[in-house]
Amino acid sequence: MKIAIDAMGGDHAPKAVVLGAIKAVETFSDIHITLVGKEEEIRKYLTKEARISILHTDEVIEATDEPVRAVRRKKNASMVLTAQQVKEGDADACISAGNTGALMAAGLFVIGRIEGIERPALSPTMPTTDGKGFIMLDVGANVDAKPMHLYQYAVMGSIYAEKVRGISAPRVGLLNVGTEDGKGNELTKQTFDLLKNSSLNFVGNVEARDLLEGAADVVVSDGFTGNIALKALEGAALSVFSLLKKQLTSSFISKLAAAMLKPKLLGLKKQMDYSEYGGAALFGLKAPVIKAHGSSDEHAVFSAIRQTREMVANNMVVTITEAVEKQTEEVK
Amino acid sequence: MKIAIDAMGGDHAPKAVVLGAIKAVETFSDIHITLVGKEEEIRKYLTKEARISILHTDEVIEATDEPVRAVRRKKNASMVLTAQQVKEGDADACISAGNTGALMAAGLFVIGRIEGIERPALSPTMPTTDGKGFIMLDVGANVDAKPMHLYQYAVMGSIYAEKVRGISAPRVGLLNVGTEDGKGNELTKQTFDLLKNSSLNFVGNVEARDLLEGAADVVVSDGFTGNIALKALEGAALSVFSLLKKQLTSSFISKLAAAMLKPKLLGLKKQMDYSEYGGAALFGLKAPVIKAHGSSDEHAVFSAIRQTREMVANNMVVTITEAVEKQTEEVK
Repeated sequence: MKIAIDAMGGDHAPKAVVLGAIKAVETFSDIHITLVGKEEEIRKYLTKEARISILHTDEVIEATDEPVRAVRRKKNASMVLTAQQVKEGDADACISAGNTGALMAAGLFVIGRIEGIERPALSPTMPTTDGKGFIMLDVGANVDAKPMHLYQYAVMGSIYAEKVRGISAPRVGLLNVGTEDGKGNELTKQTFDLLKNSSLNFVGNVEARDLLEGAADVVVSDGFTGNIALKALEGAALSVFSLLKKQLTSSFISKLAAAMLKPKLLGLKKQMDYSEYGGAALFGLKAPVIKAHGSSDEHAVFSAIRQTREMVANNMVVTITEAVEKQTEEVK
Repeated sequence: MKIAIDAMGGDHAPKAVVLGAIKAVETFSDIHITLVGKEEEIRKYLTKEARISILHTDEVIEATDEPVRAVRRKKNASMVLTAQQVKEGDADACISAGNTGALMAAGLFVIGRIEGIERPALSPTMPTTDGKGFIMLDVGANVDAKPMHLYQYAVMGSIYAEKVRGISAPRVGLLNVGTEDGKGNELTKQTFDLLKNSSLNFVGNVEARDLLEGAADVVVSDGFTGNIALKALEGAALSVFSLLKKQLTSSFISKLAAAMLKPKLLGLKKQMDYSEYGGAALFGLKAPVIKAHGSSDEHAVFSAIRQTREMVANNMVVTITEAVEKQTEEVK
């Protein structure tokens, strides 16, 4: 299996990307990785060359670039060439920790949508307090969504939860303002009916306050709301941690107590750390495209490669294509 | 000044309501409170009668009642009679810790909208890590909102922040999926233009992850998104606290350290405790209507009364009426 990786994407590129790739080829004997980017910089960290090749390019899409324009104009950017590898059949899937919008655009323009999927969805795996996690889609690929889009997200998310995360009959929840049937805005009311009449394991509306407690295995929402919910969850957790840190260093006694608690607090932080779960998948494209977190370290890059490998090994795209054909019929 | 309070609303009613009312009349010499509900139950806790009167009724709207139907059918429910007090001029404002949807319905049907305000907004004051807090509107009164609604929320929120919270030129932010201009869905893009061309102190788009860090004093959004963001923030903070508690009691050493830290941790929890800030105001009605949190204790009821008193003393409704006339002209 061949995986193309944008070596220049992310805050710690190319070092974290190269080290993560080395760890992955050491761990998985069935993968070959192509690192796309500035050869000289990549070579600084590349201590091992077996099953790793380099595709050189000088051009890079920056985090500040306007996504669609950048993909259209920077034809030789590392991210664009990474997607091109997939398009030309030189790779089975691709990964980047760079500009999220640009990766979505590269996925759409270069790799293309699965026929029948109206809108791709960006889908991270989020942590839960029981350590099981859930997948949430869409978190921003498509900000003005229709009921049928959300329905297709539910189909794709279920397949991923089952095939890649190993959850049988994954519980699908609809992010809404109340748990009762009939709650919500026009979009969620119509989506509720579609999901209720489907063969998915639909558990009804779920509220944002119950997400981290594991209310569902797959949570669907329009990209606008999903993005707001994701960032609110992240932001609140970070704010509480930073307040906690301030309190823990505010006196001699609390510093002492904090030192005693350090292993426990690190465990807590790790429990809420989404780098463990890999990157956000872009579902609905003709090949797996994974967006690793911008702040990805070596371990997060490795997790994203492991996740991508699972998606390819489990034939995610074929399964989604077949299911969407079948299940879209179901609701027509 | 006269304030009517639904004595039967909330998880700790009528005890918390009665005790909160007693504390309020002891603190503020200019208020008279009418407690509406079951006289016999109210009297159990009423140790003081100066400036507190009782309006007896047996009927109560339950938390599980369907809001609109309950308000229409239970004509003598404590919440409905509380709103009626305002309508008939026997009270200047009213408070309930009961069914949120029913209070919104009672506010709309019994008290009515300010002319020119298309949709009322539910607006809690949220905590920030610097202790200053911000107000967020709408968090669920109106789930399918239009740009003009959000614009009016911004006007009402600014007036509240300035008049009641004492913030001069309050910073108004638009909840969105990115901070750059031009981000968002159709609703936020159109709202952005309205706000940018207004005389409000509009600071642009704000992201959900920056809310608790005090990104703006007034944050506007449609009621669906606002409700999701509010519950995600609450939920994540609670989940982190519960994980923390589990870690802190998982070994002898951590229990010892936790005991040493107890005052600090309580301080932290208090910093994030919205009961300090009073209840959620329903803006856009002909009189102040305040929704106290369902789990309100005596102190939270007292805070809600203090807040209501400020709103009446500062002529919030008159100022909103005038400003909406003027500023709605501005954008037409």
